[in-house]
Amino acid sequence: MEELLRFVEEDVGYGDITTGSVLGEDRSACAQVVVKQKGVLAGVAEAKALLEHFALNVRTLKRDGEEVSPGEAVVEVEGSAVSMLMLERVVLNLLMRMSGIATATRRLADVAKRYGVVIAGTRKTTPGFRYFEKRAIAVGGGDPHRFRLDDAVLIKDNHLALVELGEAVRRAKKAGFTRKVEVEVGNAGQALEALKAGADIVMLDNFSVGEAERAISLIRRHYPDAVIELSGGITPDNIESYARLRPDIISTGYITTGAAWLDMSLRLG
Amino acid sequence: MEELLRFVEEDVGYGDITTGSVLGEDRSACAQVVVKQKGVLAGVAEAKALLEHFALNVRTLKRDGEEVSPGEAVVEVEGSAVSMLMLERVVLNLLMRMSGIATATRRLADVAKRYGVVIAGTRKTTPGFRYFEKRAIAVGGGDPHRFRLDDAVLIKDNHLALVELGEAVRRAKKAGFTRKVEVEVGNAGQALEALKAGADIVMLDNFSVGEAERAISLIRRHYPDAVIELSGGITPDNIESYARLRPDIISTGYITTGAAWLDMSLRLG
Amino acid sequence: MEELLRFVEEDVGYGDITTGSVLGEDRSACAQVVVKQKGVLAGVAEAKALLEHFALNVRTLKRDGEEVSPGEAVVEVEGSAVSMLMLERVVLNLLMRMSGIATATRRLADVAKRYGVVIAGTRKTTPGFRYFEKRAIAVGGGDPHRFRLDDAVLIKDNHLALVELGEAVRRAKKAGFTRKVEVEVGNAGQALEALKAGADIVMLDNFSVGEAERAISLIRRHYPDAVIELSGGITPDNIESYARLRPDIISTGYITTGAAWLDMSLRLG
Amino acid sequence: MEELLRFVEEDVGYGDITTGSVLGEDRSACAQVVVKQKGVLAGVAEAKALLEHFALNVRTLKRDGEEVSPGEAVVEVEGSAVSMLMLERVVLNLLMRMSGIATATRRLADVAKRYGVVIAGTRKTTPGFRYFEKRAIAVGGGDPHRFRLDDAVLIKDNHLALVELGEAVRRAKKAGFTRKVEVEVGNAGQALEALKAGADIVMLDNFSVGEAERAISLIRRHYPDAVIELSGGITPDNIESYARLRPDIISTGYITTGAAWLDMSLRLG
Amino acid sequence: MEELLRFVEEDVGYGDITTGSVLGEDRSACAQVVVKQKGVLAGVAEAKALLEHFALNVRTLKRDGEEVSPGEAVVEVEGSAVSMLMLERVVLNLLMRMSGIATATRRLADVAKRYGVVIAGTRKTTPGFRYFEKRAIAVGGGDPHRFRLDDAVLIKDNHLALVELGEAVRRAKKAGFTRKVEVEVGNAGQALEALKAGADIVMLDNFSVGEAERAISLIRRHYPDAVIELSGGITPDNIESYARLRPDIISTGYITTGAAWLDMSLRLG
Amino acid sequence: MEELLRFVEEDVGYGDITTGSVLGEDRSACAQVVVKQKGVLAGVAEAKALLEHFALNVRTLKRDGEEVSPGEAVVEVEGSAVSMLMLERVVLNLLMRMSGIATATRRLADVAKRYGVVIAGTRKTTPGFRYFEKRAIAVGGGDPHRFRLDDAVLIKDNHLALVELGEAVRRAKKAGFTRKVEVEVGNAGQALEALKAGADIVMLDNFSVGEAERAISLIRRHYPDAVIELSGGITPDNIESYARLRPDIISTGYITTGAAWLDMSLRLG
Repeated sequence: MEELLRFVEEDVGYGDITTGSVLGEDRSACAQVVVKQKGVLAGVAEAKALLEHFALNVRTLKRDGEEVSPGEAVVEVEGSAVSMLMLERVVLNLLMRMSGIATATRRLADVAKRYGVVIAGTRKTTPGFRYFEKRAIAVGGGDPHRFRLDDAVLIKDNHLALVELGEAVRRAKKAGFTRKVEVEVGNAGQALEALKAGADIVMLDNFSVGEAERAISLIRRHYPDAVIELSGGITPDNIESYARLRPDIISTGYITTGAAWLDMSLRLG
Repeated sequence: MEELLRFVEEDVGYGDITTGSVLGEDRSACAQVVVKQKGVLAGVAEAKALLEHFALNVRTLKRDGEEVSPGEAVVEVEGSAVSMLMLERVVLNLLMRMSGIATATRRLADVAKRYGVVIAGTRKTTPGFRYFEKRAIAVGGGDPHRFRLDDAVLIKDNHLALVELGEAVRRAKKAGFTRKVEVEVGNAGQALEALKAGADIVMLDNFSVGEAERAISLIRRHYPDAVIELSGGITPDNIESYARLRPDIISTGYITTGAAWLDMSLRLG
Repeated sequence: MEELLRFVEEDVGYGDITTGSVLGEDRSACAQVVVKQKGVLAGVAEAKALLEHFALNVRTLKRDGEEVSPGEAVVEVEGSAVSMLMLERVVLNLLMRMSGIATATRRLADVAKRYGVVIAGTRKTTPGFRYFEKRAIAVGGGDPHRFRLDDAVLIKDNHLALVELGEAVRRAKKAGFTRKVEVEVGNAGQALEALKAGADIVMLDNFSVGEAERAISLIRRHYPDAVIELSGGITPDNIESYARLRPDIISTGYITTGAAWLDMSLRLG
Repeated sequence: MEELLRFVEEDVGYGDITTGSVLGEDRSACAQVVVKQKGVLAGVAEAKALLEHFALNVRTLKRDGEEVSPGEAVVEVEGSAVSMLMLERVVLNLLMRMSGIATATRRLADVAKRYGVVIAGTRKTTPGFRYFEKRAIAVGGGDPHRFRLDDAVLIKDNHLALVELGEAVRRAKKAGFTRKVEVEVGNAGQALEALKAGADIVMLDNFSVGEAERAISLIRRHYPDAVIELSGGITPDNIESYARLRPDIISTGYITTGAAWLDMSLRLG
Repeated sequence: MEELLRFVEEDVGYGDITTGSVLGEDRSACAQVVVKQKGVLAGVAEAKALLEHFALNVRTLKRDGEEVSPGEAVVEVEGSAVSMLMLERVVLNLLMRMSGIATATRRLADVAKRYGVVIAGTRKTTPGFRYFEKRAIAVGGGDPHRFRLDDAVLIKDNHLALVELGEAVRRAKKAGFTRKVEVEVGNAGQALEALKAGADIVMLDNFSVGEAERAISLIRRHYPDAVIELSGGITPDNIESYARLRPDIISTGYITTGAAWLDMSLRLG
Repeated sequence: MEELLRFVEEDVGYGDITTGSVLGEDRSACAQVVVKQKGVLAGVAEAKALLEHFALNVRTLKRDGEEVSPGEAVVEVEGSAVSMLMLERVVLNLLMRMSGIATATRRLADVAKRYGVVIAGTRKTTPGFRYFEKRAIAVGGGDPHRFRLDDAVLIKDNHLALVELGEAVRRAKKAGFTRKVEVEVGNAGQALEALKAGADIVMLDNFSVGEAERAISLIRRHYPDAVIELSGGITPDNIESYARLRPDIISTGYITTGAAWLDMSLRLG
């Protein structure tokens, strides 16, 4: 809640001088948040909590994770027009950004699910807004992946430029017995080496479909229980060709960095 | 700087457990931020300040606002590998999001400029990150428009649902003599009424090209000095047809809500 | 509210050790905030919100902007004596400082209004408390002027020491199409130059009454619609002689830097 | 420092749009803070720290506590004109408010000192700015009195409306052995009762000069070592008649609530 | 409350992923905080406030300061199982740490009280958690001693290494007339010197029982009203031998740095 | 650093009134932090950073993790006596609390290591100070275990009171593919059930040595690679009897809730 209020402060400053001057006195009003594009809804819980904090009555007509179509109302608000207009933009920004991410996630997840594959996010999130973007990924049916650098080990190419792979994995396994160890690899040989050293997960980064296919088959032969993640440049255009290879996970920055916001507006009356 | 450090805290938490465990001791390293897509750079000043705060040596190879091409290095860093790897994601997220916005802004501005039109942003920004997104718009050559609800008056349809237009403008003009008064209108008649009541700017919202053309010509006839802003659904696809009408300003949420991030990575070595 | 609570923390620290030790058990009490000087009330809304946050029942007997006389009660509080005594000083400080400003503003505004002139504040406010001081100016009937350095352009003598006036105005007009441009001038010639370059407002700074009279007349002749602000050393003693010249605005630091607090106290019983 | 930076943020917001647009490029400049009224300087340490934080070179020409006259320069700054102009108002507000308090304190203290009396402040300070106002009192030669409700016991009339005086003092003495116990009294009898119960200090509140004279003489006869504080409505007009009675302390809200700011300005070049 | 919420944020981060995933839907549950060791309870008020902030119904079965035995329930909670499990650890940590301190304080205070001696804490508290530890000392029947470096003067050996004792006391007495002055001494001679110079309290630091006895007797002879504090290495093992000497105060870091937490757990059902 | 500064603010408030008044002018001094008990050092990095932030010169004589003996100096400071004395308590509190934890951890770890067992902490940490306590555990050679509720799944008895074990594990495995799933069990049967359902770790909670022995042997037979954690009431008294059973991990709240602080002091000169 404290964070949501900081968003309001960011938008409002010393006050909504338009509404403050234009409305002679405060009136009661009724309004709806209406969706203008087809998509998957996220941020309803946050929007509700924020509106209610300012003593507005809220009725949610759609829930996080629901598919919505243009013209559909998702939230109905009733109460002070001054509060409503003051909060309009923050509420819409929350809903639009989060729903945009949920929509992109769902689109990829729908394809991936047909092959038993899970879609996951990355740490490519807007600075200061990660919690909400990770929530939106979950709402869209994706796995949030790491929240921070402290909740799982992920050894990447830049680490391997400095330390030999096997040694890196052995050291990482001492980072904490409650942490999984994942290694980003550039070829199948590295993947086998990582798993041999005890890695829990291997991430095949920037593999072509063909390379990925061969690598997955090789890994599965030697380590049938290994968790395999594919990553790097995956978008709606190529998701199916990768999902078809049945890795465990496909992670992609696209759902946060490539997804457009889902357009909505607030309609009084 | 305080805000940049909060972004680091968001990403790092209790520490970068990968780098902390994998690197036996801290080594000195050298790295470059390399662009992977054509675009316009933004966020270099912020990235530099952040990296230097952690005692890394930074050499900027490109400046905010410069056009960059795949493979080009924009920043060179030298110093502790541990600090570098810990900051990698935050620095890239700042640069990628801000450059994505600057790129989209520049693309539209390049078209608009040919007709003497200025591109402006909106308040559709990621909650908590507005300052940086407004900066990116400016870097891309756009006008940031309002920062907050307290720096200019903008009477919108939701206000006009509650108060008569002329009355609203007259009241708004008392909000503060240092503030401009803008009115969002749905037709040319409203625009004339707003200007007659003393509005400084009229925003033609969601007008078709034809409607906009007729409205602008009508307004110019009666109020040759009026500032006219076009808004609503403007994207790279239709920018030229609107710019050709020579309004003063075209504002669009697209540059923040529709723009993909500009891909970059950190390369050690 | 968060800010008001910070004020309480500033005054209370680890606790009100007097009330905590002296009152054996918490008692219910009733108290009134009583005015001890004639003036204009401000801060009632803030005082009420704060008292209610600590579960006290509040009845406001006077409203922000009302004239009050010695002995009049403005707020009536009922509930825990411990909370009441703990909040006493913060509530009084808010009311006394804000009412002092509102009173000074009203006194000047009453004179100015007779000549159709608006009184405005400045950025000379107590660090950390500006929002409340600007609110008090508005309650007293004044124009708050700029909130911050980001909401309007004001080119001052120190800028003109570095950049030529006409050039400065032309550059400033590009700062944002939603911003007004004001120029502080030292003589009538500069004023005309500023308006010619497109300034929205000219501020005649530290003009004698005679100088101001001549300057206003000259400016009005060439730019009948120009907004003219007088500033510099204006107090209750000389306000009428300046107001009589009918500038649009008279701004003065006096209402925040010269105004005494309006004395009040909390009376139990 | 963190607090000083918050003051800058309050004044600057997203940026100094005037200086940012008007100065084509950043220039080096030299400026002085010049006093425009006779008074006592305070806030120099804070101003210096703030200016240096933004990489400006500072030379202090006068120190906290020094008497200054119109035209005298107190601080000399050299470096980026952009930073200088951005910080101008905050620096001046700090210096002007603090010096105004120091000046008023010194004026009263100069009189009081002739009779061996100490001038003390109260908790009537601007919310959020107390630390700086207490510092200014000290710089002016006054005793800051309580910082907060947690550092000394002060039993006031509102407490005595709820608990019998002797009992109140006995309870208060258990609040902490490191705390002094002071009692605000309305007549000499109460003062004797308080001291008998073990109070360390008695405050004679709102006594006429005659009443104070009789009370002090009575108290001194019975409790020669008692610390006696006079309070209530003391201003430059009546300070001498009270100081002449030789209480230990005279406390007054006047130095924070009645003192005008000491005018200063920043002069470039 | 704000501080309690920061503790929750510290423990929860982005969410309780266990409860969030394991509980299919939120259920209503009932739980009790049960004590597992004999001791004195503290932190109940804080625990209640925190649980109620998350809309849980709380019934307190024991109060702060009560003696509790293994198996006894101290708080009963009813409501959302998700909230309850999310808050479990923070609530227990507050109660266990605070009760551990209250228990240790009470044990010492029970002995000291028999000799009319008061037990006091020190500033040896966990960084960031002092308010709660000082509260626990008070709940256990101890005197909190100084909260901070600004609420009383305590001249220690390190000061006396730099300034002569008598001079130090004389200077300190000017720190503020509402502050007591205490001096830490290493022998009886210093104590007499301090009192002669006007100190309110002397602290005999690290005296053996014999030394303390002789010093107290000497001090009492010359300064019968002096407040005498014993400090340094006092634990449950030696408390009685020191208390028997009837100083006014015995202060000890043991109650915060040597006390084990009082074990408790949350039991559902 | 920001957090360390908050600790200073907590201790200092408006200023160190003792040092401020007693030292006539600031002097340069030299001091050492000296250990008074045998133990393992932690917090040196934090102490150094804090002291250097206030422009003191620091030479570290011992490093985090080193064994220290009474009389040994661990840090040498040189510079302003005022700063040194102001920071003394915070620096000592950090070092003493952290070293107390490191010492207790090392004592248990030394025993455990002989059997190849790792000692781990818990979430029983002082509210607001967890980061530093987890760091101290690591310095002492222990595994920090979970930082927060969001970095690993740990299904406890309270969860199992609401959901069937197998089902709970299956749901938990969907919490995120980068997270491990641990289950706290009350008997060997539950352990086998948890592992069968896919748990990564089982925690045998509050098992007697005999029960633990049988359970471990049973589990190892069926799941030779299972990670087994023992927990509940483990202290220096019984550690060896449990360690001998060769679980993978022994976790214990004792190292944070039962460990006394390691005594140290600052010696000037």
